[in-house]
Amino acid sequence: MTIDLESARNLIAGARAAAKERGLKPLTVVVLDAGGHVVAAEREDGSSAKRFDIAYGKAHGAIAMGLGSRALMARAEQQPYFIAAATSAIGGALVPVPGGVLVRDGEGTLLGAVGITGDTSDNDEAAAVAAIEALGLTAQTE
Amino acid sequence: MTIDLESARNLIAGARAAAKERGLKPLTVVVLDAGGHVVAAEREDGSSAKRFDIAYGKAHGAIAMGLGSRALMARAEQQPYFIAAATSAIGGALVPVPGGVLVRDGEGTLLGAVGITGDTSDNDEAAAVAAIEALGLTAQTE
Amino acid sequence: MTIDLESARNLIAGARAAAKERGLKPLTVVVLDAGGHVVAAEREDGSSAKRFDIAYGKAHGAIAMGLGSRALMARAEQQPYFIAAATSAIGGALVPVPGGVLVRDGEGTLLGAVGITGDTSDNDEAAAVAAIEALGLTAQTE
Amino acid sequence: MTIDLESARNLIAGARAAAKERGLKPLTVVVLDAGGHVVAAEREDGSSAKRFDIAYGKAHGAIAMGLGSRALMARAEQQPYFIAAATSAIGGALVPVPGGVLVRDGEGTLLGAVGITGDTSDNDEAAAVAAIEALGLTAQTE
Repeated sequence: MTIDLESARNLIAGARAAAKERGLKPLTVVVLDAGGHVVAAEREDGSSAKRFDIAYGKAHGAIAMGLGSRALMARAEQQPYFIAAATSAIGGALVPVPGGVLVRDGEGTLLGAVGITGDTSDNDEAAAVAAIEALGLTAQTE
Repeated sequence: MTIDLESARNLIAGARAAAKERGLKPLTVVVLDAGGHVVAAEREDGSSAKRFDIAYGKAHGAIAMGLGSRALMARAEQQPYFIAAATSAIGGALVPVPGGVLVRDGEGTLLGAVGITGDTSDNDEAAAVAAIEALGLTAQTE
Repeated sequence: MTIDLESARNLIAGARAAAKERGLKPLTVVVLDAGGHVVAAEREDGSSAKRFDIAYGKAHGAIAMGLGSRALMARAEQQPYFIAAATSAIGGALVPVPGGVLVRDGEGTLLGAVGITGDTSDNDEAAAVAAIEALGLTAQTE
Repeated sequence: MTIDLESARNLIAGARAAAKERGLKPLTVVVLDAGGHVVAAEREDGSSAKRFDIAYGKAHGAIAMGLGSRALMARAEQQPYFIAAATSAIGGALVPVPGGVLVRDGEGTLLGAVGITGDTSDNDEAAAVAAIEALGLTAQTE
């Protein structure tokens, strides 16, 4: 099982709604399937040129390593050379700050990931978690 | 001026509707702004893993060179080494078959591009053109 | 809207004039449009071989992230792994020290960016700001 | 000896004047020094987003191989795999169609190269040659 397009669209809508409620800056939201491939993406007006790449990097790094990007940040704080090497090894797209969140179903099966950028990393992550939980799914940030 | 998120969503919805009417295979649709950056993307269920990259490459090549991807195919037929070299020079994302269509307003100003992949290249392009024209904009395929 | 060639030439002339007044070392000045693409560039005699790449990286990083390169330096000081990862994610051209300055019009619309290198980063930035303000435009350094 | 900034600016102005006389499409002109590094560049309004990369690739390939890009096209026609391999070997920037012209002084010393793109390759090259000869220098197209 993996995220289908309808779920991906709902995750994006949910994240954008959560961001609007919280008054966040314009976001870019990317949803990947369990294989780390883009299902859907939206960049809000005012979100800068390459924000797709940053959001993608958060989500892709999470899928690649099987950890939310908050855990990748913790590792980067401890062993920056490991994260640098892993980024290179997996082809360049791994952004180790919060906002890349794994999506699991009730039994823990990995369905995909949401990557968000635009506000602070903590707020980016909060919007992703809100969207995932609004669909009755489980968010893994670490 | 460039494509905003609402227009990008409308372009995707229009392309998917046109594809459904025509009975096309599952598509991936990417919309880029005038600078070649992702505004929105959707990959329909059943569209294969890396289709985002193909759709992006069609649209990105079009923006990069200022020509619809059908013109890039014609050039690839005549001078394959030129298209190979241009692809390398611009960083790797240029897919020279129909389905990468420039979007212009009534005065000819470049607003962005739509890239579609999933069915035949001709059908991919037809869905893009239908979506662009449904918004009262001008489609440039060559 | 984006920077046209005449404005880009004026920005370069203004930056070089400001540098001459201040007695700065030979500079390289690059002007990008709102999509992060080169509009014009000049490398003064005595500015070293790859200075185009450095100036481009300052301006390109600013456009990519929507922040002046001084803000990117602050982030690099706090979270070097984030800036390293973002650089990789956006394709390699991001130089996080002052001298990459966003150009906005009176209403805040992003028009492009100026990247300068050759003297100290602070002086590079000052020359960019002087050139931008001399055209009645707004400089965003952070 | 190598092209200085004043000469590079004159080469660009000359190429743009020649293009205007001939009624060519909007051009992008890049001037490199004898080491293959950017001295100056201008992209005319209407010349598409990544034209800098194409113009640079023509001139850089010429400097890299010591031949005008017309000769590189001839080689690409005969041995496309050689040009593909050389492009990869030198880092990706080699565009083997006319418009990358070496600049030599009266004694044959290499001073740099001009790369032009925007119209047909033949017209791109003609504008480069006109600019080089207008300065009393020698153009090498092959």
